Amino acid sequence: MPKVSEDHLAARRGQILDGARRCFAAYGYEGATVRRLEEATGLSRGAIFHHFKDKDGLFLALARDDAHRMADVAADQGLVQVMRDMLAAPEDFDWLGTRLEIARRLKTDAEFRAGWTERSVELRGAVLARLERQRSAGRLRDDVPTTVLLSFLDLVMDGLVTRLASGQDTDDLSAVLDLVEESVRRERA
Amino acid sequence: MPKVSEDHLAARRGQILDGARRCFAAYGYEGATVRRLEEATGLSRGAIFHHFKDKDGLFLALARDDAHRMADVAADQGLVQVMRDMLAAPEDFDWLGTRLEIARRLKTDAEFRAGWTERSVELRGAVLARLERQRSAGRLRDDVPTTVLLSFLDLVMDGLVTRLASGQDTDDLSAVLDLVEESVRRERA
Repeated sequence: MPKVSEDHLAARRGQILDGARRCFAAYGYEGATVRRLEEATGLSRGAIFHHFKDKDGLFLALARDDAHRMADVAADQGLVQVMRDMLAAPEDFDWLGTRLEIARRLKTDAEFRAGWTERSVELRGAVLARLERQRSAGRLRDDVPTTVLLSFLDLVMDGLVTRLASGQDTDDLSAVLDLVEESVRRERA
Repeated sequence: MPKVSEDHLAARRGQILDGARRCFAAYGYEGATVRRLEEATGLSRGAIFHHFKDKDGLFLALARDDAHRMADVAADQGLVQVMRDMLAAPEDFDWLGTRLEIARRLKTDAEFRAGWTERSVELRGAVLARLERQRSAGRLRDDVPTTVLLSFLDLVMDGLVTRLASGQDTDDLSAVLDLVEESVRRERA
């Protein structure tokens, strides 16, 4: 039997993640059964769980992928730009509604929470580093600790995910993000 | 058979709502089965669903009760004070985690969404009326429409509910709420 190449493994992994993302978006965390994950990925449960330990593992891998992409944008352009991107293409973030379903487990399941927190370390680091740079460049308000500004932006992000996940009206939100951005800046425009 | 008094009906209704609130807080929306609702309220399913059409009806009645109490606080002291109250006694708002579970249904179930929206009309009205009063008194910034300020506060509130529901660290949030409050005021402190 030929050795399975690294490329092949990476492609297979990507195929599973793409399908799982669609499946979570369509059915939610609970609704994304193994059978539906098989349909969405076009692969057997054996193949899926060869690459990922279980459904939690799949979910956390998707969360890490997202966090990685968001961290890239946040490092250059800040977390508000990440939120503007979400607002511009909400369908790309459909699966994030699943985040709301798992809130209870974050509270009660320490192992799951650890996996989730790990995922957020990179994003948090990228946002904090950019805030520090903005502060050094004199563009950030300096009467509030950077960690509080980060916590503020995080809170708004959680609110935005909730808003998008519940399909509420987002008409005002671009103006709201202007306000958020300005609130962390040195002076009002 | 003696006619059941209004007082008795109101007391029974309150007993059901208190039990249901504890039950939703402990088990979440899906986990709050009819059997658990019976245990939590100390009443039979017949008695419970004599007062409320179904589990959705119970849930929406709780949401309306909360919205009513929040509207009272918001009318006098604003939505940021409502959020400060939540932060001070998060255990009183434990059941609100259920709000996250129902996000998907808000998106896909028009009837349920209508019930939920109805609940928010009173709270939204109270907050908007106070913002208008604050603006007339010159305490509110006047370069951003009041509806955008309302939408901003709503978004932060959604974020706070998510934060509390997932049991995340809330240490910074009092300072974050100071920042939020200041962001809607006329001038920076």
